[in-house]
Order: sequence, then C-alpha cells, then structure tokens
Amino acid sequence: MANPIPAQYAGSRTARETDLPSYISGYVDGEGCFTVSISPRRTLRVGWEVRPSLSVSQNGDRSEVLLEIQQYFGCGMLRPDRSDQTVKWEARSLLELRLLVVPHFHSYPLRSGKHRDFELFADICERMARGQHLVPAGLIEIVRLASQMNPSGKRAYRPDAIIASLRIRDEGIVCPVGNNG
Amino acid sequence: MANPIPAQYAGSRTARETDLPSYISGYVDGEGCFTVSISPRRTLRVGWEVRPSLSVSQNGDRSEVLLEIQQYFGCGMLRPDRSDQTVKWEARSLLELRLLVVPHFHSYPLRSGKHRDFELFADICERMARGQHLVPAGLIEIVRLASQMNPSGKRAYRPDAIIASLRIRDEGIVCPVGNNG
Repeated sequence: MANPIPAQYAGSRTARETDLPSYISGYVDGEGCFTVSISPRRTLRVGWEVRPSLSVSQNGDRSEVLLEIQQYFGCGMLRPDRSDQTVKWEARSLLELRLLVVPHFHSYPLRSGKHRDFELFADICERMARGQHLVPAGLIEIVRLASQMNPSGKRAYRPDAIIASLRIRDEGIVCPVGNNG
Repeated sequence: MANPIPAQYAGSRTARETDLPSYISGYVDGEGCFTVSISPRRTLRVGWEVRPSLSVSQNGDRSEVLLEIQQYFGCGMLRPDRSDQTVKWEARSLLELRLLVVPHFHSYPLRSGKHRDFELFADICERMARGQHLVPAGLIEIVRLASQMNPSGKRAYRPDAIIASLRIRDEGIVCPVGNNG
C-alpha cells in the first residue's frame, strides 16, 4: 500500500511548544469537577457548611498529570481513592481557590458546558469571601446557585430541603436581633 | 471578612488567548481513548479485522466541545450513545487518523501515561498503512502492540487466543504460497 499522506503533511515529528495553561484547561474540562457541597454542621450557627472544591481524578497508573496540575496551581492535595483505584487531586481551601484556581479559568476558559458550573462556582466563592454563607439569607442564595451546578450529579441533600430549614432559622435568628418594627 | 486576595492578583478578568491545539490535547488526555479493536471477520483472508479509532465522550448536555474537536481535526463522526446519555466523537478512517489525528499528538503530546497508548496506536496505524494487518505474521505483531494499550480496559477477544489462531493460519497460508524449500 502506498503512503497515503501527501508530502506537505510529512513535517517534523518533534513536539511543538504546548501551552501548559491551555492544556490544563482542556484536561480539567474533560476530567475535572467543580463542586459545592452543602452538609449539616451543628457547630455552625447557620446549621450548614458550604465546601467548594475542584477535583480531577485519573487512573492510578496515569496519575503523573495530576502531579503536574498540583505543581501548576501550587495548591491542593493528591490522594488515592481506594474505592475505584483512582488518584484524585483536590483543591478545597477557599483562599487558594480564589487566589490560584479561579483566576486561571477566567484567563483560560473552559469550552464545554462545564464553563457554566465554573461561573456558578466562582460566584459562590466570592459570596463566601464576603461571609454570605454564614447567614441564612446569604446561604439560601448560595444553595440556589449550587443547585444549578452539575445537573447530572448526585446530591446528598435536596436544595429545597436545605432552603426550608434555613427559612426556619432565618425567622429564628435574624428577626430577634435585627428588627424591632 | 476582608478580601484575602492581594492587590497584585486582582488583574483583568478577560480571557487570554487559549491555545486551541494545547487545550484539545489536554481534553483528549482527560476524556479521550485511543483504541485498536481486533475482531473476527470471515471475509478477510487473515480472519481478523483491525480497527483503530480515537473517541471522546461527553455528557449530552456538554457536547459542544465535541463539535469543536470535530471541526479542529476535520474528521470523525458525532453520534449519541443511548446506553449512557453521552455523545461520542469518533475518528475511524485510517487515512484520516494518519493524516489529521496522529500528527497533532506528535506536535502537542499527551502528558499522562495515555501518551504510551498513543505511541502504540501511531505505530499500529503505520503498520496498517504498509498492509501488515493483512498477513498473519504482521498481524501477530499488531496484536502484541495492541495488547499493551489501555491496560485497565476490557477486551472482547484475548490477545493470546487471536495469536494462536493466526499461527494456525500462518502455517496454512504462508508456507504453501511462499516457500518451496
């Protein structure tokens, strides 16, 4: 069989200059997950804890790229997930997410529908920086935003159940402190 | 809560210039799969058909990036996978794989262990261009190379079983035609 590739395509086989930030946005678009989990926490006055994270999983035998992602962002932890033989890189610190992770995806945006998840995630991180997750009215808005993320994912607690419990707390906490009229 | 991000990080929120080839290598590294399937085919003299492909799957609600990948490579088909609500882009033509797909990943290499799968895939495509998949001895080598790909994936036919059947064909086909001594 003759070589079917025209001569003009038979260029150098050496690697060109891969742009690492663009590559990482592509990798995270394929394999990463922006998550905002909301779970009960009795020690918090508002009764619920908000935890934003970005995680990327990979088969254990291919985890070197996660180390590269960790080095690129300069934050997050690598840990094995024994349930399915994968390794996960995860960034959970609000400060690091706002300082190191979110700006990257503003500069090198995701190109799939996952970009919408990122926008909601970045909005929630900013609201948390203003302490809105610590008061019922602010947390209700955060729950509403988080409920629009990852529509195909599973949720441990239904958003409407969280909001209902916060409305009860809102009446119990805010009115006696702030309103006299 | 005070804004914890130092002033020097508070730059423009506009997107920089994402390098699309690098982004696509990252996306394929996370979500793509280089496959060489080998399955029985009675109409072929050698008894087995070799089909290389690159595929990328995505949830149906996030499939726009697959359209971008199709446009970038200028080949491949988009089709829904009804079994799991995903959409798949798949390139299967040997000519298109060699002309349009393989050169991209030489220029913008994968950075995970999936790069090893790509190298085996590219080697097999070159051997097929020389017709080695059409004779038992050449196909045995292709089966050996393919057996090293995707170590965590499932295989419909065990490589050693394919090779054993090819050894029988090799004795039956090659000796009477080529050897008199």
